Amino acid sequence: MTRRTASALATSGDVLRLIRTGEAVTRADIGRVTGLSRPAVTLRVGELLERGLVVEDTEGPSTGGRPPVRLSFNASAGVVLAASLGASRTQVAVCDLSGEPLAGTEEEIDVEKGPDVVLPMIMDIWSGMLGDRPVSDVWGVGMGVPATVEFAAGRTESVRVMASWTGVAIPPVIRERFNAPVFVDNDVNVIAMGEHRRAYADELDDLLFVKVSTRIGAGVIAGGGILRGALGAAGEIGHIPVRDGGGVLCRCGNIDCVDSLASATAILRDLRAKGRDVSSLADAVALVRAGDAETMAVVRRAGRLLGEVVASAVNLLNPAVVVLGGDVVEAFQPLVSAVREVVYRRSTALATRSLRIERSVLGPAAGIAGCAYMALDHVLSADAVDIAR
Amino acid sequence: MTRRTASALATSGDVLRLIRTGEAVTRADIGRVTGLSRPAVTLRVGELLERGLVVEDTEGPSTGGRPPVRLSFNASAGVVLAASLGASRTQVAVCDLSGEPLAGTEEEIDVEKGPDVVLPMIMDIWSGMLGDRPVSDVWGVGMGVPATVEFAAGRTESVRVMASWTGVAIPPVIRERFNAPVFVDNDVNVIAMGEHRRAYADELDDLLFVKVSTRIGAGVIAGGGILRGALGAAGEIGHIPVRDGGGVLCRCGNIDCVDSLASATAILRDLRAKGRDVSSLADAVALVRAGDAETMAVVRRAGRLLGEVVASAVNLLNPAVVVLGGDVVEAFQPLVSAVREVVYRRSTALATRSLRIERSVLGPAAGIAGCAYMALDHVLSADAVDIAR
Repeated sequence: MTRRTASALATSGDVLRLIRTGEAVTRADIGRVTGLSRPAVTLRVGELLERGLVVEDTEGPSTGGRPPVRLSFNASAGVVLAASLGASRTQVAVCDLSGEPLAGTEEEIDVEKGPDVVLPMIMDIWSGMLGDRPVSDVWGVGMGVPATVEFAAGRTESVRVMASWTGVAIPPVIRERFNAPVFVDNDVNVIAMGEHRRAYADELDDLLFVKVSTRIGAGVIAGGGILRGALGAAGEIGHIPVRDGGGVLCRCGNIDCVDSLASATAILRDLRAKGRDVSSLADAVALVRAGDAETMAVVRRAGRLLGEVVASAVNLLNPAVVVLGGDVVEAFQPLVSAVREVVYRRSTALATRSLRIERSVLGPAAGIAGCAYMALDHVLSADAVDIAR
Repeated sequence: MTRRTASALATSGDVLRLIRTGEAVTRADIGRVTGLSRPAVTLRVGELLERGLVVEDTEGPSTGGRPPVRLSFNASAGVVLAASLGASRTQVAVCDLSGEPLAGTEEEIDVEKGPDVVLPMIMDIWSGMLGDRPVSDVWGVGMGVPATVEFAAGRTESVRVMASWTGVAIPPVIRERFNAPVFVDNDVNVIAMGEHRRAYADELDDLLFVKVSTRIGAGVIAGGGILRGALGAAGEIGHIPVRDGGGVLCRCGNIDCVDSLASATAILRDLRAKGRDVSSLADAVALVRAGDAETMAVVRRAGRLLGEVVASAVNLLNPAVVVLGGDVVEAFQPLVSAVREVVYRRSTALATRSLRIERSVLGPAAGIAGCAYMALDHVLSADAVDIAR
């Protein structure tokens, strides 16, 4: 965790934030708000102008005399690269400094082919999107991967979906080509961040995102930022056990983890055990639509078991909103109702008083947005702006 | 959650922090470090001198010419009042601005008598400790209560131990006599804060404190600060269910909450069910000392069940250290071993890679220390220092 040091007071980065938020957009205002001396303001604004982060707009409001020069944030000064890797689909984008995508694509990339194959493929896509832009325009890179990540090193850990990626430190590989800071995080963390920034940041600071897909994971936003914990491993909700799981052996070696009972894999397994011929979630959805009561019961049970661990997480974290996403949630609306029912019954009164439980607003778009924000938060932070690039 | 606004850059509070930490202790250094103009530095230091927060020390190192005036933090400028309420014992203290107790006492106060009786008793103790000091010397008040607290309002909620306190907003009552900002938090949150600041703050930022006593609760330090969640209800680990509880009805109405299976109450109940004549933890400790295998088994089972929910919390939060405290932990060393065993087995590999599981270092002293730090963090924060008192 980075703590802001006292020596970083009113730096160029701070001045940039004032300009971006519109809190102070003239040199005089910046001096007034920060208490910086006139030469100090000139120096800091000069640095920002030189780096293209800020542009001068001479058409200020006329006050009779010479209008003060207004400064504005230049989101086109550079770009960030974003990639959200999934077991089945991978999204790749180039975004401006406000997080708006300038180019984006979704590809079916077999991540099992390993980093030696997949990372060059993604980098080639970025290079294609950059076109004639020089590499020096790339200010940062954000990547989400379906694995636990030791955040500080950007190293993937305990990977179940992508076995060939275990222990790989991704940042050095990407830095070699793009020469910019690289941030790699768990896919659910970046989805939680994207969902929070785009849909909830104006109203609340504490969000729990639970992704239910081939596996179950969570991303926690606490006080407006990603809760990463000591090594970046926070949010591992999938291997919390449930009470009435029936003794299912989880791939992690433990018994009755919610991942082994409410994931897509588990739901399909349970349907097959009941003689249903299903090979995908779409098959299961078709059975629900056809009114198959037993399929419905399997889905509802998965929702109740998921609700149990979400209730535990709500007790521990007291989020303002729980957002449920992933293809299992997209497929089965009743799952959300089941989770809601259990959480409101099982969590403490204060934790649920104003708790909302919602489906993802952004859906699959959350991950790539979160990757861009993760890079931008660093690139535009006071500390980073103050380091000459 | 309070976010630092850009308009609070390099304020008096920031200057105070530079002086407290020793990062800049002369006016010239402050100007250099912050970029503040000379008049701005003079203004801010003047404010701090006037309020007694900073004193001038003219005996700087001789450099031939007139030595620069050195500034130092004056921890005697004011006091904070601290009180840690427990079901059985209540600690009350007056501390200086560095958190050192100037006076302290531990009283047996029956909190069940309700706030109308208990709060005046505590305030009278503070008044006695203050002696001739004027009330204006009191800069802040920190209080921990054995209840869930809606932090923003300092209002107690869903109180099980202290039924007569439910829905009471404590701060207005105390402000009426002491006219200072009042912070009330859950007892386990303040214990976690005290333990972290005194024993771990130098080396790690992420700590999970679990208190096992009449009830089971947790306080979470994430990124160096208390994780409170949306309403201040975070850390309710006691009502997370365990897998093999055997169907015990918890006082919250749910089944197999760890609180109903591993708390002091639960351990004594289970021992009585096995025909042991126990009315206190001391009785149970005597049985363990006498080599009673069945008592030992009850304690070990409580530890394993506690370990299950701690493992879930470790998966979600990825703390660097889990600290176990409370009288049950003080009584039974084997409980800690049992928790350790289960957590290392059940939590994910990355979450446990460098995880430490320790007994409380401070013991009962952590709560009152945490209360003082909670008040001081506010009183000495940039925002608070900048508001004229």
